[in-house]
Amino acid sequence: MFETVLKNVSEKTPLVHCITNYVTVNDVANIVLACGGSPIMADDIEEVEDITSICGALDINIGTLNQRTIASMVAAGKKANALGHPVVLDPVGAGASKLRTETTFSLLKEVKFQVIRGNISEMKTVALGSGTTKGVDADSSDEVTEENLSQSIGFARELSKKTGAVIAITGAIDLVSDGERTYVIRNGHPMMSKITGTGCMLTGVVAAFCGANPENLLEATAAAVAAMGLCGQLAYERVQAAQGGTGMLRSAIIDAMSRMDAACLNGGMKIELH
Amino acid sequence: MFETVLKNVSEKTPLVHCITNYVTVNDVANIVLACGGSPIMADDIEEVEDITSICGALDINIGTLNQRTIASMVAAGKKANALGHPVVLDPVGAGASKLRTETTFSLLKEVKFQVIRGNISEMKTVALGSGTTKGVDADSSDEVTEENLSQSIGFARELSKKTGAVIAITGAIDLVSDGERTYVIRNGHPMMSKITGTGCMLTGVVAAFCGANPENLLEATAAAVAAMGLCGQLAYERVQAAQGGTGMLRSAIIDAMSRMDAACLNGGMKIELH
Amino acid sequence: MFETVLKNVSEKTPLVHCITNYVTVNDVANIVLACGGSPIMADDIEEVEDITSICGALDINIGTLNQRTIASMVAAGKKANALGHPVVLDPVGAGASKLRTETTFSLLKEVKFQVIRGNISEMKTVALGSGTTKGVDADSSDEVTEENLSQSIGFARELSKKTGAVIAITGAIDLVSDGERTYVIRNGHPMMSKITGTGCMLTGVVAAFCGANPENLLEATAAAVAAMGLCGQLAYERVQAAQGGTGMLRSAIIDAMSRMDAACLNGGMKIELH
Repeated sequence: MFETVLKNVSEKTPLVHCITNYVTVNDVANIVLACGGSPIMADDIEEVEDITSICGALDINIGTLNQRTIASMVAAGKKANALGHPVVLDPVGAGASKLRTETTFSLLKEVKFQVIRGNISEMKTVALGSGTTKGVDADSSDEVTEENLSQSIGFARELSKKTGAVIAITGAIDLVSDGERTYVIRNGHPMMSKITGTGCMLTGVVAAFCGANPENLLEATAAAVAAMGLCGQLAYERVQAAQGGTGMLRSAIIDAMSRMDAACLNGGMKIELH
Repeated sequence: MFETVLKNVSEKTPLVHCITNYVTVNDVANIVLACGGSPIMADDIEEVEDITSICGALDINIGTLNQRTIASMVAAGKKANALGHPVVLDPVGAGASKLRTETTFSLLKEVKFQVIRGNISEMKTVALGSGTTKGVDADSSDEVTEENLSQSIGFARELSKKTGAVIAITGAIDLVSDGERTYVIRNGHPMMSKITGTGCMLTGVVAAFCGANPENLLEATAAAVAAMGLCGQLAYERVQAAQGGTGMLRSAIIDAMSRMDAACLNGGMKIELH
Repeated sequence: MFETVLKNVSEKTPLVHCITNYVTVNDVANIVLACGGSPIMADDIEEVEDITSICGALDINIGTLNQRTIASMVAAGKKANALGHPVVLDPVGAGASKLRTETTFSLLKEVKFQVIRGNISEMKTVALGSGTTKGVDADSSDEVTEENLSQSIGFARELSKKTGAVIAITGAIDLVSDGERTYVIRNGHPMMSKITGTGCMLTGVVAAFCGANPENLLEATAAAVAAMGLCGQLAYERVQAAQGGTGMLRSAIIDAMSRMDAACLNGGMKIELH
């Protein structure tokens, strides 16, 4: 099943329209390319509908949102909805400012998202309208753990039912749920949190995978989450071997994604269905 | 001749004013430094004329254009024209949206460009007003090949005559023409298309080389194109040796440019004059 | 003393609000993480006060300023002042355009800065209202040298007294002064000037160190400057060993910062108090 997901990405080279933040945009573009997609970054209101029309998926990331780009996000989202393209939301820092929280709700009202991916604090804000986001990182008291796993799965399921979107909550343990089935994924490495953009990059990969697998969004999202975590593990091994640091980790994650194939993913993914 | 081009760059350290996209801007700045130039990124209408006045060349790249920066591009372009500085256009994604196509034509009308560099689909849009751009990548049916080479050279020549600019069409085979003479360059590696920004980076290098060689724009542009392709080859060798991927390739291209000298370029460039 | 500075950073994980340029923003975020802080980039006027309120320090960098972000800088600065958070100014390119020079003075008037960090040409502009900035690099005729050292220390002291801020002037020799005491730091490597963003990255590290050490801004700033220089040296050694170039240097600097500890800093810093 996950093999089919990867095969579709490499055969279709999905074009992904990204309206994303300027902090991690280069990494997002490079990892979308590395995973087999083709990224286009465009955020002017005069062109977002044209651009999204020639793409297969839309990635909306509110990382460095501003009044100008918020309007473009809504316009692109509505157009992608009309065309039936998967639209993925990354509510970066939802809960950290009134603007981010309100924009998240406004987007959820105006645009139908097929996937929402965030850390647990951001996702609690999406669910409850308030969160305890510590800046753009999750609050450790919110984290998904082995102890609260079934409760967390319940949260993911409910949020999926409420939003109608596949929900991807990422952290030490990742959850991907469509409201019925939930994948629990235990790939990844703690060092990934020491670089900026692993979440943004993952959302770009999710968009590419969903663009190539619009009939199978749950497995496309789960495959992207597992692949990204596995890339983090492989990159960490490289960094350790070379006595490198976080600069090398960033580059090695993209390296690993560019070398990922079905055999590597099947051999390394730690995934179970609940 | 190409030795003189490089010598002028290293002796003059040309300042390059870049109004470019936020996706690849860091790579552009770093490769302009690596090739011997000094980049300044500035896009506010209140300062672009000041900034371009202290520079030796202007790089206009429409990669993530918006209403605010389009006005700045025009103002900077007019000022650079008045001062006699080489102005280089990178029409990223021309043909992919009405905004990009119209902005390209508006820029060509308002500003005199000394060099225009793009992939074949972008350049067909520049020539014909319409193209078959697949997002920001060239459509494969448009590609310059050995089979259509003389026809493609004819296209480059005509476009140069029409625009008055040196035309650089880059892809598997690169063409650089001033309307009379055309260089055909066969450096580069296919893996370069798996990272974002090789085109933007090249345009920055073209601007730096032209800023240091304003009397010899054709050879300055050809040298930049060949050097960039050679850097791609050298970087690919590094990546293969280290079993790396596209993250490493990106960094290794800048590495190679920072180590490039006349001996390396002369030894590695695959160039012929038509 | 410098050990305490580092210890506070690693124990407190200071959140740093950065309003910075889009050229080097990713490197700034990654090095703030590498040094033990947590960065948040946000520049919309509707959220900068919220964001700065949850942070421990504010980094204002005018590298690609525009009308929209200048207003956000002022609003964030005033809020951080009201909350007693350290505010650090990086006047990138002050002197290169009227807009940058005037914005620098406007910021100095509206916001109280605890630290100002720049190259010597930028700092002369801060002091005198005019400078001989060569783009975003220092003019070599301005450089701090062994010959003009005591005069340069005098300049730093006076500027600190005038502005009420800790002054960090960085170049081949770095000066950090609070108007009474001045640290002279001789870490660093010339190759650092061949990549973009070492100054911006340093300012981010200064903000993180000051956020964790608000009672000891002089030593926090001096430790950041010495650590960054030492990272440049360590990175250069890596690059030489691997026959790499400037692409590798950039990544290796972040690697070195992510591996920096008190023993490494104490063993490598070349610092004296004047």
